[in-house]
Amino acid sequence: MISIVDDVTVRLIDHMGSDAAICQAARVSTAGENDAAETDKDAGLIRYLMKHRHGSPFEHGALKFFVEAPIFVVREFHRHRVGWGYNEMSGRYRQLEPRFYAPKPDRKLVNVGTSARPEFAAGGEAQAAAVNRRLRTCFQDSWNAYQWLLNDGIANEVARMVLPVATMSQMYATCNPRSLMHFLSLRVDSPDSTVRSRPQWEIQLVAERMEAEFARLFPATHGAFIANGRTAP
Amino acid sequence: MISIVDDVTVRLIDHMGSDAAICQAARVSTAGENDAAETDKDAGLIRYLMKHRHGSPFEHGALKFFVEAPIFVVREFHRHRVGWGYNEMSGRYRQLEPRFYAPKPDRKLVNVGTSARPEFAAGGEAQAAAVNRRLRTCFQDSWNAYQWLLNDGIANEVARMVLPVATMSQMYATCNPRSLMHFLSLRVDSPDSTVRSRPQWEIQLVAERMEAEFARLFPATHGAFIANGRTAP
Amino acid sequence: MISIVDDVTVRLIDHMGSDAAICQAARVSTAGENDAAETDKDAGLIRYLMKHRHGSPFEHGALKFFVEAPIFVVREFHRHRVGWGYNEMSGRYRQLEPRFYAPKPDRKLVNVGTSARPEFAAGGEAQAAAVNRRLRTCFQDSWNAYQWLLNDGIANEVARMVLPVATMSQMYATCNPRSLMHFLSLRVDSPDSTVRSRPQWEIQLVAERMEAEFARLFPATHGAFIANGRTAP
Amino acid sequence: MISIVDDVTVRLIDHMGSDAAICQAARVSTAGENDAAETDKDAGLIRYLMKHRHGSPFEHGALKFFVEAPIFVVREFHRHRVGWGYNEMSGRYRQLEPRFYAPKPDRKLVNVGTSARPEFAAGGEAQAAAVNRRLRTCFQDSWNAYQWLLNDGIANEVARMVLPVATMSQMYATCNPRSLMHFLSLRVDSPDSTVRSRPQWEIQLVAERMEAEFARLFPATHGAFIANGRTAP
Repeated sequence: MISIVDDVTVRLIDHMGSDAAICQAARVSTAGENDAAETDKDAGLIRYLMKHRHGSPFEHGALKFFVEAPIFVVREFHRHRVGWGYNEMSGRYRQLEPRFYAPKPDRKLVNVGTSARPEFAAGGEAQAAAVNRRLRTCFQDSWNAYQWLLNDGIANEVARMVLPVATMSQMYATCNPRSLMHFLSLRVDSPDSTVRSRPQWEIQLVAERMEAEFARLFPATHGAFIANGRTAP
Repeated sequence: MISIVDDVTVRLIDHMGSDAAICQAARVSTAGENDAAETDKDAGLIRYLMKHRHGSPFEHGALKFFVEAPIFVVREFHRHRVGWGYNEMSGRYRQLEPRFYAPKPDRKLVNVGTSARPEFAAGGEAQAAAVNRRLRTCFQDSWNAYQWLLNDGIANEVARMVLPVATMSQMYATCNPRSLMHFLSLRVDSPDSTVRSRPQWEIQLVAERMEAEFARLFPATHGAFIANGRTAP
Repeated sequence: MISIVDDVTVRLIDHMGSDAAICQAARVSTAGENDAAETDKDAGLIRYLMKHRHGSPFEHGALKFFVEAPIFVVREFHRHRVGWGYNEMSGRYRQLEPRFYAPKPDRKLVNVGTSARPEFAAGGEAQAAAVNRRLRTCFQDSWNAYQWLLNDGIANEVARMVLPVATMSQMYATCNPRSLMHFLSLRVDSPDSTVRSRPQWEIQLVAERMEAEFARLFPATHGAFIANGRTAP
Repeated sequence: MISIVDDVTVRLIDHMGSDAAICQAARVSTAGENDAAETDKDAGLIRYLMKHRHGSPFEHGALKFFVEAPIFVVREFHRHRVGWGYNEMSGRYRQLEPRFYAPKPDRKLVNVGTSARPEFAAGGEAQAAAVNRRLRTCFQDSWNAYQWLLNDGIANEVARMVLPVATMSQMYATCNPRSLMHFLSLRVDSPDSTVRSRPQWEIQLVAERMEAEFARLFPATHGAFIANGRTAP
């Protein structure tokens, strides 16, 4: 039997750095190592760096996340190349598990805009239920084919060809505050953004949970990011 | 009706540079711009650079390719981050076409090794035919579900969740000789390699065609890459 | 005798791509390879990509430059890491030439602002002449020491320690339209910029000449960059 | 009065990760998150990853260093672009300090090879002393010119042009185990290396101290790096 998963998982595994550590790196430009730390001035310095696009101090930190999400989300995620490292579950070296993503009821399913500029609307309970039934049937059929192929001795890397992009995957993703802010600027649609973005709903779920951890660990940096129209430096 | 595609497509779209252009960049280290070009010495210089891991001169060129390949190949491709730029067909902004990959008869299907160290063997004609029938059936079912969802008004980005990773995708991929050699070192399994790699057969098909273009455009560089055990500098 | 150089050199050596080639890559997202090119719509598409921060299509091009500039400019240049490849004259593998940078009269020399927020003013002809005399004397002394050390058998890499950061260097620098725009956004101070930058005058000289070549080769892209407040996508 | 510094400084400021954390990321490929950690097998897994060029697991860690070194070392350092973030003391936003690098007696000064393939030999005490006197005189002259220019109201960014590349600079440099190993493979000359490198002695001083911290924090990874001929994965 397959499992239907209607959410993503994001867990902070480890991190390095803080707002103060970013300021420490930034101050080497102007002050050298021996100047007294001025933590009461950190928030102001961070706002200045963010506004004036001094991005490099925000690279002196690290965040390592575990993420479980469907393949179509991981695919979008991996387009973020700079300042990100990834290790993902492999459909070649292991047999995958029967876990598939299907949206929960608050995910708007219907496009009432155009293909190039989609606008999403809820479709009503009956439609949502019908969609979920259809997804589940399709996933079950794919899973059956996958199992049939594996049982026939077919290699993992061939058998997996039938699995849908809704198959759940897992990865570790490590970034720094700068590369994370760049990701958040594109993958969270917020009225605070100077330039609005239209991320897929499911990758925004991942991004929002990463943002919550980021805001907790680097509050002044996150605050300056918001104040800067969610534009990464 | 769906189409089954049993091969990948690679087309060189444009390029910049040559063996001589790589040497021109390398010689600035030692000679400055006004020294006479010594094209008869280019091959020797390139071998020297390759052997001694002077990689930066190999970044002064560019190759732009069009690639058609299944999603599971594009996924592996996008893990190559440095020195590569990509634009891929989007399942959000357009409706995808009913084109799916299934292996041709010379693709070995059966794993006679372990999960961690697969060894591939052909399974015989009858098995190959049975696998292809099963793939085709599964792809047709997925395509029917995709069409059903789209006809129900469901957004592209939701409907596509049912499509398998064997769905054909298209992309433009631009690289430089250095980043291409790094890709080739990992994605072509060759007895010439100092460190053997075990790429998926289908990405090797893409890589081999890129390598043929590379060998034609940068023959001395390609020759030095082979002579260097297919290790990128 | 030493030479004083009062300008930088920038020469386009080679390039790949065009506004149309950027659009070709962008359209794969929505159209696939077989759709008719719509060159009359290219400028609009480019403006759309730039405004909405779709940066990846701007990576499918290349520009290779030769640059002669003082070491202090090259040092700033090399902080641009992503999408740039460099080869620079080496003070280890060759003996350097007695060429040093000193500003020409229209370079404002005096800081009438603060250290953190410098504002530059011209200092008058007499001061400019005195500065140049002092620079020339200092460069000549450094050069004499360099020659003395080399004549004593001291290795290039040790002897060069005495040479000033105004020593002229040469490099090849290869980039793509996206990485070039990022460089231009930070290294040209323009009233067109949404976020003003304060580059050193001499690196702006380099950047302006690169920008002229860029505007000639990719006119629609350059126009959209300006219209977008000189913010790189 | 100027100060002569005859050494570099490297201090580990912060770090994230461990050998176990690298293995955790690697195992997601084959095992998923819920498998029991097998720390007794970590060293073997790390050797396997290193040997077979599975580089990405080594990106899930971070090391932040403070470095004081002469400008000519920092210049070489900044050529390492991927997986490194830097913030360096600025000669534009502050006035520099009168600290200059001159070699200590055990630094071999004389080139007894060729320009392209230097071989270094000690020159004897008398020569070493003479070289140091000459360096000191030259640095003092440059410093005097710098002060003269600053006292004349000349902007920092212009006055610094006279300072030699032996001027001491400071930076914060943050990397991950993979990018650090790549740096070490090129910047430490060791008989353990499969491909020998010829780094400048002073950057090797920096690299060796970074390597000592790395070996302490990631002992299994460091051991596998050595066993792999000091080739980064």
